[in-house]
Amino acid sequence: MTSQNAAPSAPRLIKACRQEILDRPPVWLMRQAGRYMPEYRAIRQKMGFLELCKTPDVAVEVTMQPINAFEMDAAIIFSDILIPPEAMGMEVVFGDGGPHFPNPLQTAADVDRLIIPDPLEKTGFVMEIIRRMRQELASRPDTALVGFAGSPWTLASYMIEGGGSKHFAKLKGMMYDAPDVLHRLLGKLAETITLYLNAQIEAGAQAVQLFDTWGGILSEAEYRRFILPYHQQIIRNLKRDETPVILYVNNSRGLLPLMAEAGPDVISVDPLTSISDARQIVGHRFALQGNLDSTALFSSPQVLKPMVQALIAEGGNQGYIFNLGHGILPPTPVENVRLLVDLVKESALTPAHP
Amino acid sequence: MTSQNAAPSAPRLIKACRQEILDRPPVWLMRQAGRYMPEYRAIRQKMGFLELCKTPDVAVEVTMQPINAFEMDAAIIFSDILIPPEAMGMEVVFGDGGPHFPNPLQTAADVDRLIIPDPLEKTGFVMEIIRRMRQELASRPDTALVGFAGSPWTLASYMIEGGGSKHFAKLKGMMYDAPDVLHRLLGKLAETITLYLNAQIEAGAQAVQLFDTWGGILSEAEYRRFILPYHQQIIRNLKRDETPVILYVNNSRGLLPLMAEAGPDVISVDPLTSISDARQIVGHRFALQGNLDSTALFSSPQVLKPMVQALIAEGGNQGYIFNLGHGILPPTPVENVRLLVDLVKESALTPAHP
Repeated sequence: MTSQNAAPSAPRLIKACRQEILDRPPVWLMRQAGRYMPEYRAIRQKMGFLELCKTPDVAVEVTMQPINAFEMDAAIIFSDILIPPEAMGMEVVFGDGGPHFPNPLQTAADVDRLIIPDPLEKTGFVMEIIRRMRQELASRPDTALVGFAGSPWTLASYMIEGGGSKHFAKLKGMMYDAPDVLHRLLGKLAETITLYLNAQIEAGAQAVQLFDTWGGILSEAEYRRFILPYHQQIIRNLKRDETPVILYVNNSRGLLPLMAEAGPDVISVDPLTSISDARQIVGHRFALQGNLDSTALFSSPQVLKPMVQALIAEGGNQGYIFNLGHGILPPTPVENVRLLVDLVKESALTPAHP
Repeated sequence: MTSQNAAPSAPRLIKACRQEILDRPPVWLMRQAGRYMPEYRAIRQKMGFLELCKTPDVAVEVTMQPINAFEMDAAIIFSDILIPPEAMGMEVVFGDGGPHFPNPLQTAADVDRLIIPDPLEKTGFVMEIIRRMRQELASRPDTALVGFAGSPWTLASYMIEGGGSKHFAKLKGMMYDAPDVLHRLLGKLAETITLYLNAQIEAGAQAVQLFDTWGGILSEAEYRRFILPYHQQIIRNLKRDETPVILYVNNSRGLLPLMAEAGPDVISVDPLTSISDARQIVGHRFALQGNLDSTALFSSPQVLKPMVQALIAEGGNQGYIFNLGHGILPPTPVENVRLLVDLVKESALTPAHP
């Protein structure tokens, strides 16, 4: 561990993003602060989701819960991708059936009414969480703090559909019938997210991840029109000297070359593409993150252990971050999370993979 | 139109499956007999879904509804992919929230209890629908009758999950923890489906389509273990001299080479891969079917028309069947279905595409 007086070396996660050779990969889990943890559920008994996102003291406590319990190599700030749309002027409700916009976007006028929020003024609580988290992690300099945002396409999906969707008929309807209006919305979102992530970086986020949960529902030609330019715009305009960018697209089989074109430092791979195939597809210009299937964590330790070990071997010790292929699921047994993290950490005891 | 006394030439759909050069592609729509039609909804007012499947008179009427209304080039028998699992010994309930197995498969003993049903004895009503449909279509020799079944993987998904699913945790749990039990189930399903489709062919189905709705949720390596061998087993054992086999896998981006390895006559493409890309990927050994996004049918005629025309041009007049990329959605306006079918039919009036 680096002494606090010496110039601190970068956390393990950042070294992996830079493709430095390590004795083992870093490990963290998407949605690692959340409902599978009894400590989290206890807090949610007392506080609604949105209130929690906006109360830095408690959000910091929740962000730290998995770090305290399992000692992952990265903490991801507790927040939600729908915080920026709310700051743009949309009412968002977090109910039992998932997030919901009571007044979804329908017309060009609806899109024109959205503001591009000053991230400090409208989402200062997120930056406050980041500042406090860096203080919290001062004694753990090898644990990186990760900020994040949703991608314009995924945010537009929620803002137009009003919530989750199966067929995305309203979103695609706007894409087919009023592509210029959709582009105007995506442009506003890209500008908002760029400012938002840069504010996170300035507040102390050491890496940022862009989540495109619904990026996999388009054909390649549509992805090139409605997703890639906005990924590129955001990534190009981030203050990246010290801060790697991780790009995650769900259901991304066949899309990895387009993810690479966006120019992130790290490509976060879903379970549909193996890490070896991903490496073949995108080459060594990118670090990779992923991609254990979240449902594997429901299996017995005897089944889970060889799956985790195989993935550690596949990922290797250079340019690889151990993670899930999508978010951890609420019914996940905590013992399996501990087993997973411990297995990655123990892999440092065996000789490094060639 | 062929005179009823002369040796009838094959219906347009069959010619397209055989990659004959045509003046225009055939057109039909997955789920074309269904809830978007007021005639169908009127019948469902009086009769439950499963009863309808098992009442040949009415199933034939429903199968003919879109043919009478829009004159597609193929009729697909009105039935459901969960008919064979019921015949294997599982109780299935069709409720408002979709189909549901009250007693999903959990153990090896559950799988062992399933029978391999004689398709004539247990699902004779399906064969009766096919026989009557052929009589019904005797005066329309250019309209093909298509039979179908669900793939073992997709059927296993419903039988293990008990219904629809978001994360397929139970199905994947069996895949991880008891792959031998899952293989036993998939083997029984493959045998059942082979008998079932061969009985449909003997009853008069002129083409059969295998639907793998959930084939896209696996990695390539998993697909090779749990899906491909069963596709191959079924397709290899079908009586195919005169009867082409269409293979549909949903969310199949990146999976087309594996679909080709199954050896069907026609690869039915979802909206994620363009027909041109599909042709490049699988070459000219296969006819292609698809792949208009079902949500395009919600657009205005001005928007829909150029989309349909572009797809007609892209598909061409050899080895191509115009269809949707997945099933038609219940809120689809019938006028747009008429427009779509008419546009494909009118394309014969323009010179054939090179």
